[in-house]
Amino acid sequence: MSFQNPVFIPGPTNMPEALRRACDMPTLDHRSPLFGQILQPALAGVKKVLKTETAEVFLFPSTGTGGWETAITNCLSPGDKILAARNGMFSHRWIDMCQRHGLKVEVVEAAWGTGLPADRYEEILAADTNHEIKAVLATHNETATGVKSDIAAVRRALNAAKHPALLFVDGVSSIASMDFRMEEWGVDAAVTGSQKGFMLPPGLAIIALSPKAQAAVESARLPRTFFDVRDMMKAYANNAYPYTPAVGLMNGLKQSCDMLLAEGLDNVFARHHRIAEGVRAAVRAWGLELCAQTPDVYSDSVSAIRTPEGFNATGIVTHAAAKYGVAFGVGLGEVAGKVFRIGHLGSLTDVMMLSGLATAEMVMADLGLDIQLGSGVAAAQEVYRSDSAIASKEAA
Amino acid sequence: MSFQNPVFIPGPTNMPEALRRACDMPTLDHRSPLFGQILQPALAGVKKVLKTETAEVFLFPSTGTGGWETAITNCLSPGDKILAARNGMFSHRWIDMCQRHGLKVEVVEAAWGTGLPADRYEEILAADTNHEIKAVLATHNETATGVKSDIAAVRRALNAAKHPALLFVDGVSSIASMDFRMEEWGVDAAVTGSQKGFMLPPGLAIIALSPKAQAAVESARLPRTFFDVRDMMKAYANNAYPYTPAVGLMNGLKQSCDMLLAEGLDNVFARHHRIAEGVRAAVRAWGLELCAQTPDVYSDSVSAIRTPEGFNATGIVTHAAAKYGVAFGVGLGEVAGKVFRIGHLGSLTDVMMLSGLATAEMVMADLGLDIQLGSGVAAAQEVYRSDSAIASKEAA
Amino acid sequence: MSFQNPVFIPGPTNMPEALRRACDMPTLDHRSPLFGQILQPALAGVKKVLKTETAEVFLFPSTGTGGWETAITNCLSPGDKILAARNGMFSHRWIDMCQRHGLKVEVVEAAWGTGLPADRYEEILAADTNHEIKAVLATHNETATGVKSDIAAVRRALNAAKHPALLFVDGVSSIASMDFRMEEWGVDAAVTGSQKGFMLPPGLAIIALSPKAQAAVESARLPRTFFDVRDMMKAYANNAYPYTPAVGLMNGLKQSCDMLLAEGLDNVFARHHRIAEGVRAAVRAWGLELCAQTPDVYSDSVSAIRTPEGFNATGIVTHAAAKYGVAFGVGLGEVAGKVFRIGHLGSLTDVMMLSGLATAEMVMADLGLDIQLGSGVAAAQEVYRSDSAIASKEAA
Amino acid sequence: MSFQNPVFIPGPTNMPEALRRACDMPTLDHRSPLFGQILQPALAGVKKVLKTETAEVFLFPSTGTGGWETAITNCLSPGDKILAARNGMFSHRWIDMCQRHGLKVEVVEAAWGTGLPADRYEEILAADTNHEIKAVLATHNETATGVKSDIAAVRRALNAAKHPALLFVDGVSSIASMDFRMEEWGVDAAVTGSQKGFMLPPGLAIIALSPKAQAAVESARLPRTFFDVRDMMKAYANNAYPYTPAVGLMNGLKQSCDMLLAEGLDNVFARHHRIAEGVRAAVRAWGLELCAQTPDVYSDSVSAIRTPEGFNATGIVTHAAAKYGVAFGVGLGEVAGKVFRIGHLGSLTDVMMLSGLATAEMVMADLGLDIQLGSGVAAAQEVYRSDSAIASKEAA
Repeated sequence: MSFQNPVFIPGPTNMPEALRRACDMPTLDHRSPLFGQILQPALAGVKKVLKTETAEVFLFPSTGTGGWETAITNCLSPGDKILAARNGMFSHRWIDMCQRHGLKVEVVEAAWGTGLPADRYEEILAADTNHEIKAVLATHNETATGVKSDIAAVRRALNAAKHPALLFVDGVSSIASMDFRMEEWGVDAAVTGSQKGFMLPPGLAIIALSPKAQAAVESARLPRTFFDVRDMMKAYANNAYPYTPAVGLMNGLKQSCDMLLAEGLDNVFARHHRIAEGVRAAVRAWGLELCAQTPDVYSDSVSAIRTPEGFNATGIVTHAAAKYGVAFGVGLGEVAGKVFRIGHLGSLTDVMMLSGLATAEMVMADLGLDIQLGSGVAAAQEVYRSDSAIASKEAA
Repeated sequence: MSFQNPVFIPGPTNMPEALRRACDMPTLDHRSPLFGQILQPALAGVKKVLKTETAEVFLFPSTGTGGWETAITNCLSPGDKILAARNGMFSHRWIDMCQRHGLKVEVVEAAWGTGLPADRYEEILAADTNHEIKAVLATHNETATGVKSDIAAVRRALNAAKHPALLFVDGVSSIASMDFRMEEWGVDAAVTGSQKGFMLPPGLAIIALSPKAQAAVESARLPRTFFDVRDMMKAYANNAYPYTPAVGLMNGLKQSCDMLLAEGLDNVFARHHRIAEGVRAAVRAWGLELCAQTPDVYSDSVSAIRTPEGFNATGIVTHAAAKYGVAFGVGLGEVAGKVFRIGHLGSLTDVMMLSGLATAEMVMADLGLDIQLGSGVAAAQEVYRSDSAIASKEAA
Repeated sequence: MSFQNPVFIPGPTNMPEALRRACDMPTLDHRSPLFGQILQPALAGVKKVLKTETAEVFLFPSTGTGGWETAITNCLSPGDKILAARNGMFSHRWIDMCQRHGLKVEVVEAAWGTGLPADRYEEILAADTNHEIKAVLATHNETATGVKSDIAAVRRALNAAKHPALLFVDGVSSIASMDFRMEEWGVDAAVTGSQKGFMLPPGLAIIALSPKAQAAVESARLPRTFFDVRDMMKAYANNAYPYTPAVGLMNGLKQSCDMLLAEGLDNVFARHHRIAEGVRAAVRAWGLELCAQTPDVYSDSVSAIRTPEGFNATGIVTHAAAKYGVAFGVGLGEVAGKVFRIGHLGSLTDVMMLSGLATAEMVMADLGLDIQLGSGVAAAQEVYRSDSAIASKEAA
Repeated sequence: MSFQNPVFIPGPTNMPEALRRACDMPTLDHRSPLFGQILQPALAGVKKVLKTETAEVFLFPSTGTGGWETAITNCLSPGDKILAARNGMFSHRWIDMCQRHGLKVEVVEAAWGTGLPADRYEEILAADTNHEIKAVLATHNETATGVKSDIAAVRRALNAAKHPALLFVDGVSSIASMDFRMEEWGVDAAVTGSQKGFMLPPGLAIIALSPKAQAAVESARLPRTFFDVRDMMKAYANNAYPYTPAVGLMNGLKQSCDMLLAEGLDNVFARHHRIAEGVRAAVRAWGLELCAQTPDVYSDSVSAIRTPEGFNATGIVTHAAAKYGVAFGVGLGEVAGKVFRIGHLGSLTDVMMLSGLATAEMVMADLGLDIQLGSGVAAAQEVYRSDSAIASKEAA
């Protein structure tokens, strides 16, 4: 595997050199006033990216999985009931985590390749007249299938059912790459990590809790210490931290937010959309299909591409790494061997994406798929050529 | 605060440039074979540093606090009884964590400045004929007081009482700086972090479980997912990870172990001892006293220095940072305002230490303490001059 | 201009991260023994890359231009006669330098796009029965036209004429990318820089002098001090340097040689050839022509591509930078506006090259040239797919 | 030699991490508009540091030695007469260079340890009624002896003699560390390098020519191409460069100027003076003497310290490196073995300096000199404590 080529996995993403440097800090005394000068702008920057003014942001030396655990252990109690849909590997894992923490999960099964069924949520919530359901889980972007769900619709379902359950959203592979409106959508807990849209190394769980979620913290009885947001809240007020913070990553997060906001969130989202459109045009040119079943659920951060019946899609990933030094993503869970994934989020340009598409073509041709070399590239080039206004404003 | 000067806090430590670079990796696909080439040597290296062949090592994107939580949530069940001594801020915090996880802690209070009372442990364990106590907690090095405890003695206490409790040891500020013999001492869970003796940035919890502790994992009923070692064990067997690993830090850990083992653990410990001896000689020359009450508990990684009655020791830290750009550690908890701390672990040379001592002298003189300039430096110089054989083998 | 995309200029090249780090050294006392541990392996490594055992290598904080000046000022005297061909911008500049130093240059004009006329050299040398010509200049690879010349043929011309003139070769854009046989070809002075095949930042002139050239140094009367190889030779013998060396670049050069030799020079040259073949296949697919007139002079490090009559080729470079953030090279001198150049030397993979070709296609289409999108990419993909054995051994 | 400790050589200096990063740039196309955004601010910044508005600045991939050569080859012709004083190794070397370039040098010998004899200059210039002397050389700071000369006095000598000779000043170890007033002092050529006061790696010669010197360029007949300022001037006007520029170092220079100007030149000079005063206080406390004979010539960037008769001062440097991993400077030329040098310029804090003094004490004691440990440190501490207002504003 060559470090010269970009990666095309759905995170960790390619990192801008400026952010790597921001993370690679000399040792800083986190009990000195300098720490607050990193912490506070990082928290403020994340709030802007999440489009919330009322939520509190928490940063843990952890990952998105730790972020999920933070949301549930801080807001829920043993035996609480949860509503969640399973439409891919990551929604599956979150459900599993809830069960391991002693929560009762009402699971709505949805086809892998479809979005969250907000209508089913509404039915179940409306039927839950005793309000036994304490939280609704929603995966904004299913990284395993390349499927984006409609969080606003989930909120409407809750509202229609007049249900007080908390809305927890996994935005790990959407936040900072696709539009996320924490306040407008009434999200109570938003979870992400450092290594996706924020273009940083892994190692930071990023969690935001709405005032309603914060209010639930005191009565929540699931045990936690490392992930206890109360300790964080108390410490943040003094520009401090309950234990040793991952200062470098926090400094990187501060700069990442600065970089994203300088580019403009709308431009960031448009860039991701444009690059994704190029990938989707290539997939069509290849005569293949996305795992995502309908255009309304196409993800702008990752595409899972179905390969023909009988072909082992995992071979594409292995061969691309071994022969061309390029990393793509394998299919997971139910779609293992049936799809391969192209990550197109984070620090990426049209030009870099074209090298990924060109590689995918060579790999598929090498493995005997009926792919015309250059066909997908040409389709993507058409997309990238036509959107010049934005192309020139690529992230540094 | 200037980044030009070394820090003299008890972690995070000064970092060798080679380790910063090892951590600052380009994006690597952690599902590719390259990951195993980082993971396995890192695990093997930690085992050598811990002097264990039978324990399993686990690396979490977390900190020492997460390491404590890993130990207790993976080996214990709600309501289990724990034995622990409180002789400083960090032993206090671990006790607090146990209580927040619903464990019953029998707390042995010990004076701050003394080591763990192994004799009291033995009495209590001997009296626990029903073996209700499931685990014994021991803080190897109390970072708050600069006190090292005798873990071998705790093991002897357990053995003398023929008690089957697990022995959990917090080695956060000792491991890789002072001798730690996991196997010989019969330690069941050893916990540390990346940012102390391993000279890396914070962000990695390092935990080792003995076969006996591993056997306890299946029956342990405290909920955990992020910190579940079962998922780690399963994944490690496939050179994989249950979620996104902090690859850079793991690569740093691999190189840190290589560096420590190349220097030779005995040389590493001797270097820490020599530098610490210089600091202690300086303290004596200043006419001050250590918080640590007797030489047998002097820590080789951090010294807590008592200032005269009525003097606010915290002012030393504030003034050193503001006027000289140098970071020392404040007193915590019971000794807040009464001590200041000089960290002398990790990547440090005699020469760097002398600049810390010279700074402390200026600061104390500035604040009106009766300190003769150059006196502590001279005392330390005598120590450092006389130990030439080792001095020339400083860590890179 | 985005730093995310590779550059496709004929130097400075893309740099492997390992080499950037080797150059970015902390301050080292160049009067300490450490300096020799960098200097000597760097000199030895360059000799291996040049395929010479008898030449002496000199490293100046300078560039290829300084290397030219080193060769002429150390071996020649005012009024000396020189034979040189002009077949591009860089051979022109070297001639100009000779003239500015008071040398008389017999210039053989050759069409831009052709190689050095060894037969003309032979005629002139044979006619120079008084051996007034003291040195013959030969540009191994004309960076301006993408033309490689046959240095062995120039040597044969000298031999055929039984002429004792020194043979000076500009290998700036060939050495370490294309085969260079200093000893076999009887080269007396070989000149290059750090920023091409050695994949380093600019700032180092690399010069090798044969024993015959060294013998000429004492009698040479052109004034020089900074570029005086006698001071270098004397200093090198003591692991020293006549003034402050560019230690970081020299450390980078040492590592670059290690990296090239570890890959294997034949593999390095084959990789450059394969990538170049892909570019040339793309050019043919686009229906365009190279500036280099015949396959025997095709350069494996840079291609100059003629655009249709009446089209301003420089616009391609400007547009690529402005819209797509990609750097190509403009035409220089006689071919300014008539060609654009694609550099394909140094740290480059097939995958990176494909992104350059894809970009060139978009740019040419944007500017109205009749280029079918994906056509050049497809042609290059065929080349890159078929050479799998080597593809997987890309430079790190 | 450990990279953990600071260096105390008179250049290359310790480098701020921010400047190392500025130099360690990804590859940039120097023919793109980005280059001008680095070049022009670098040139403008140097002019501010030199306190000139009318001079032109030139940046060569070279060193101070190349800067000397630039000054003489661009302004003088073979056979021209030069006036120069020799009071140390570096003034000696510049004289030697002039002679090797065919210039006639009238050498004024001055004791090593004294400054330039402006009165002797005036006598000689007054006697040169035919104005045969074309240039006067003056070394502002003799790095070999730690002696600063009075350039304003040299200008007064020229003026008093009404002599039109050009005034060339070697400011290699003074510029950006000590006050330098190009315009006020009527300096015609100022020469320095990147690795001293600018705190950068070596590799850049920095030259400024007054309008009068620029006017001399056209008629100067010494041959030069690499160092020809005419090519530079022409290129700079187009944001271009006559060959491949050392872009990273130029970017570093831009940031270095920003950093120096942000600190404030007066603060930079005061910081150097304060640190030097501490060193001098230590030397007195040790009972030793400076090579510099009188306080008016004490250099604020380097101190050469005489050791007792019969003691080999070079042993101090060797022993410090071998046993303590610290670099000091040896004596050169006439004072070889008689002095050792402590460099105290560039990126340095009081705290770092104290570790250098403490090391020097241990070394001298180790080698049998009658030095009281801590004595020099204490003397320096007194200096550093008393100057708190500036201490807290140290360069990052």
